[in-house]
Amino acid sequence: MKEHSNSPIYRNGNMLILAYDHGVEHGPADFEPNPASADPENVFEVAKHDAVTAVAVHKGLAEAYYPEYSDDVALMVKVNGNSDLRRPDDYYSPKQCSVQYAVEELGASAIGYTMYAGSDYEDRMWQEFREVQEEARRYGVPVVMWAYPRGHGIEDNPDYNGDTDTDVIAYAARLGLELGADVVKCKYPGSKEETEKVLDVTGKMKFVMSGGSKRSDDEFIEDVRATVEAGGNGLAVGRNIFQREDPTEILDRLEQLLY
Amino acid sequence: MKEHSNSPIYRNGNMLILAYDHGVEHGPADFEPNPASADPENVFEVAKHDAVTAVAVHKGLAEAYYPEYSDDVALMVKVNGNSDLRRPDDYYSPKQCSVQYAVEELGASAIGYTMYAGSDYEDRMWQEFREVQEEARRYGVPVVMWAYPRGHGIEDNPDYNGDTDTDVIAYAARLGLELGADVVKCKYPGSKEETEKVLDVTGKMKFVMSGGSKRSDDEFIEDVRATVEAGGNGLAVGRNIFQREDPTEILDRLEQLLY
Amino acid sequence: MKEHSNSPIYRNGNMLILAYDHGVEHGPADFEPNPASADPENVFEVAKHDAVTAVAVHKGLAEAYYPEYSDDVALMVKVNGNSDLRRPDDYYSPKQCSVQYAVEELGASAIGYTMYAGSDYEDRMWQEFREVQEEARRYGVPVVMWAYPRGHGIEDNPDYNGDTDTDVIAYAARLGLELGADVVKCKYPGSKEETEKVLDVTGKMKFVMSGGSKRSDDEFIEDVRATVEAGGNGLAVGRNIFQREDPTEILDRLEQLLY
Amino acid sequence: MKEHSNSPIYRNGNMLILAYDHGVEHGPADFEPNPASADPENVFEVAKHDAVTAVAVHKGLAEAYYPEYSDDVALMVKVNGNSDLRRPDDYYSPKQCSVQYAVEELGASAIGYTMYAGSDYEDRMWQEFREVQEEARRYGVPVVMWAYPRGHGIEDNPDYNGDTDTDVIAYAARLGLELGADVVKCKYPGSKEETEKVLDVTGKMKFVMSGGSKRSDDEFIEDVRATVEAGGNGLAVGRNIFQREDPTEILDRLEQLLY
Amino acid sequence: MKEHSNSPIYRNGNMLILAYDHGVEHGPADFEPNPASADPENVFEVAKHDAVTAVAVHKGLAEAYYPEYSDDVALMVKVNGNSDLRRPDDYYSPKQCSVQYAVEELGASAIGYTMYAGSDYEDRMWQEFREVQEEARRYGVPVVMWAYPRGHGIEDNPDYNGDTDTDVIAYAARLGLELGADVVKCKYPGSKEETEKVLDVTGKMKFVMSGGSKRSDDEFIEDVRATVEAGGNGLAVGRNIFQREDPTEILDRLEQLLY
Repeated sequence: MKEHSNSPIYRNGNMLILAYDHGVEHGPADFEPNPASADPENVFEVAKHDAVTAVAVHKGLAEAYYPEYSDDVALMVKVNGNSDLRRPDDYYSPKQCSVQYAVEELGASAIGYTMYAGSDYEDRMWQEFREVQEEARRYGVPVVMWAYPRGHGIEDNPDYNGDTDTDVIAYAARLGLELGADVVKCKYPGSKEETEKVLDVTGKMKFVMSGGSKRSDDEFIEDVRATVEAGGNGLAVGRNIFQREDPTEILDRLEQLLY
Repeated sequence: MKEHSNSPIYRNGNMLILAYDHGVEHGPADFEPNPASADPENVFEVAKHDAVTAVAVHKGLAEAYYPEYSDDVALMVKVNGNSDLRRPDDYYSPKQCSVQYAVEELGASAIGYTMYAGSDYEDRMWQEFREVQEEARRYGVPVVMWAYPRGHGIEDNPDYNGDTDTDVIAYAARLGLELGADVVKCKYPGSKEETEKVLDVTGKMKFVMSGGSKRSDDEFIEDVRATVEAGGNGLAVGRNIFQREDPTEILDRLEQLLY
Repeated sequence: MKEHSNSPIYRNGNMLILAYDHGVEHGPADFEPNPASADPENVFEVAKHDAVTAVAVHKGLAEAYYPEYSDDVALMVKVNGNSDLRRPDDYYSPKQCSVQYAVEELGASAIGYTMYAGSDYEDRMWQEFREVQEEARRYGVPVVMWAYPRGHGIEDNPDYNGDTDTDVIAYAARLGLELGADVVKCKYPGSKEETEKVLDVTGKMKFVMSGGSKRSDDEFIEDVRATVEAGGNGLAVGRNIFQREDPTEILDRLEQLLY
Repeated sequence: MKEHSNSPIYRNGNMLILAYDHGVEHGPADFEPNPASADPENVFEVAKHDAVTAVAVHKGLAEAYYPEYSDDVALMVKVNGNSDLRRPDDYYSPKQCSVQYAVEELGASAIGYTMYAGSDYEDRMWQEFREVQEEARRYGVPVVMWAYPRGHGIEDNPDYNGDTDTDVIAYAARLGLELGADVVKCKYPGSKEETEKVLDVTGKMKFVMSGGSKRSDDEFIEDVRATVEAGGNGLAVGRNIFQREDPTEILDRLEQLLY
Repeated sequence: MKEHSNSPIYRNGNMLILAYDHGVEHGPADFEPNPASADPENVFEVAKHDAVTAVAVHKGLAEAYYPEYSDDVALMVKVNGNSDLRRPDDYYSPKQCSVQYAVEELGASAIGYTMYAGSDYEDRMWQEFREVQEEARRYGVPVVMWAYPRGHGIEDNPDYNGDTDTDVIAYAARLGLELGADVVKCKYPGSKEETEKVLDVTGKMKFVMSGGSKRSDDEFIEDVRATVEAGGNGLAVGRNIFQREDPTEILDRLEQLLY
């Protein structure tokens, strides 16, 4: 973990990452509530809102769409991901973009990486994360870990109550700090108090909540507020933004809350 | 995805790729309807027709036959493939040509890569595709993804109706866009309407239909017409061309339709 | 094994390594007896005590916290580790920091590596240790092997009485010497006599006992004394230090005993 | 496939490769019919006969014996192979010589590679063949593929009648052309007519029959004659030569037949 | 196989390799008959005897002890090995020293490598041996193969009578010649006659017998004499030397016998 205090993905130390990796992770089904969201151009337009500090996409979308938006928003390239078409024995997220390509050719200001702690493939992902993290250091860009504990190690452990168990979230978040992430993105553990428990073990590392599936505006805003009040640094959000036809109002509210 | 607007594999933004990888994928059985097609020279001769913008072959055929045709047609080297002799546990297509060799030594203007989304080996192919795609970028040549979803993830998923399910085709096509393909080659989903559903999620990326097994001229031409009318950019075709003794007439009709 | 007689991790040939890798290996649960220990800053403060010759942490903590303490204590970067979230078929500890990054960027004076001899993955770890050890040689920094025999080879062997069997500890310690470690860190085998048996086979290599789980001060000090009297060179200790609110007194006693 | 028209392994476009890889593939048992054949020197002496255009051996024999024969015969280094001591789950032939070492240090004029199409390890061998083939191109030396279809994909497929089925031989031979071999070495399919069926699909690539186990002179010569009359380019032969005490006469007959 | 006629590991073409890799392969148990043998210094002292042409040790012992003995004896670094703590599914010996490190940093005059022909991991070891052998060639140092056939391919094959079957030893020894070893180290097959059968197939390559477990002086000396009379080049011996308190007399006898 390093400060990167001048990184464009931070605004007053906080951030709102517009995550648009759903075409990879969930497929076109996630675009159905708002069919316009299938067109990356429409989502990049949303990213122009001042509340958004970075747009997180995979390589192909960055190549095709980011050049026209490079003055409007910082780019975070998600360098690994996995489709929902495959049904693996346990969770693994292969790398499909090199850090070099992301930074040098695509203009990335930050790197995103999914880590499935608890999976049988955790080891392999640690090793891949090592290379990603050290290469990102050479370019001086922050690394955001999507800390998603899941897999046999979580499911089969009677001490854990699934992947929303605060103990599980806290352990996975701590691994982000230990392995050298600069920001960790975790599922919201349910309340300000539980978030504080997580933040007790994440040291200086920044923490953002994961937007999750779409819910009412007030519920969603309250979760973000609790995160920030607990000491978190904002959120990475996708469906709660792009699944609505006009996200301006909710982004306005988030901007006010975060900065 | 990048534009590559000057690439010789496009003509007015559309393309007809004469695919001749059947000696690898299906073996000599595919040459039986027209025994002359076993001789690559005869197929390269067909590729001289103005309708054909690129001939897609494996390394060995490119080495032996392309030098004499380099003035007549652009070369697309298929850098992975798999034989039908092996009966694997799930689909995988190993790489048998480096991009460097394809471009520098064989004169390739484009790279072809088969992706079996849904297979247990999808992860490995994503990683190999990453290297292929980024190396192709260094040479400035477009990458065409043979987006062929298949394997346990498709077969064992009750939500899917096999590999011609529009949802499956659309997801696999979207992955082409997300992973950085410039053109995606998909099975024809059965109608103009279904093709439009696929094209709704493929953004700026070009789309070509796969010729498939041989059928009547009118049926075949109608499928191509529907593809183009839905917004597609042409086709990659093998058996429907080389399994006939004189493909001139059908190529004339395709030329008229496409450009 | 090389002497590295000028290494800052040694003081009069002995050492006290403050190990703080528990956030990786055991997770936040290890911080519960003394919640302040979850904050790395508090543990780095403890490392300022003159008894401590090196602080052993993972990459991320070194990045975030060591710069402010580089005048106070030598840094040992633990380059592999594994979380307790995953439940693997046998023990393996993946590498998450390169030696180059540890030395050049983090300022490491020594490298730590966990070796699970007896595990099904022992082979793979030997190979990874080879690269780590040879790269450390290029930088002239000592390598400390956490020699932790465990896994099927130990559990399923009726000749062995688990991982505290002196024969097992001695074999694993000897492997440290043979594979090129400079210091080996082993579980305390229970008495001065048993420690001597281990030291009979470790040649010139230095030997430190592992602090283990927290116990009474006198018991703990006696184990260290027996280790030193048997010819050992000190200890690597975590929980017996950071799980107490003020470890000054115990560190004073250790300092007197060791140097 | 490239012409390599000046290669010393060809004589008037044909070739007789004296294959002496049996010490690896079958072990000393193959030397029993003629014990003198166990000494490589004796076999290299045979290779001096004008009928022989190349001697195909593994790295170790080339190192030890070829220097004294480099004026007499061209060297083909077999860069992969496998012993009969191991009983694997399916066929695989690991690489034990780099192309660089073969050409630069051993003086190889050609490279030999065994491909087990149909095996569960076919994929891995394709990938290894790719590297071998492309490195051979850098040195301008031809690549001879031992095209030996076998393994589960052949044995378990009811459509195939084992590895002497002409369809299987033809498919495997075609793969040689597609993957970039310059010469393919196949089992004799039993008659001139069956050989012609194979040659119908191998394009410009050269074709040699595999000598196989020892049989009567007339039978053997007839098979070679049929191969050449069908359009083949000669043979690679071991046991039918070195298992006789004086092979001069049979080599004389082969020379007359081939050139 | 190359001559390396000036190598210090040979004396009049023969050799006595003092093998001291038992701390890795068997663990401290092998030191029990003569506890002083646990201290490498004592064994290096033995290596000063003129009968000994090379001492074979692993990396760590070479680092720590060889510098003081470099004027007295040549160093052979054993670059792979495996502990007896692990109980694998079949035999495999991972590499724990690079040839570069062995030669450039440790001063090795020769490289030792264990090959388990017949094991399920034979393939992997062939590939690793290839790299080791070719790197050793770059340094001009001989490679000694510990040719130890074992594993499922031997145990499950009813044609073989275990790993002391002369046919098995001969095949494994021949593989040494074919793969490019300069010296092969084999189990003694029981008599001069059986040794001759092995030497019939090993060509110019040197052959040494493996000392094996400790037995009476006369028995041991007779085995060595039979080996030399059959045409062998000496022995590699460990326990029959270091498990006695004063090996001078037996070394005197061996010196007389070998040179």
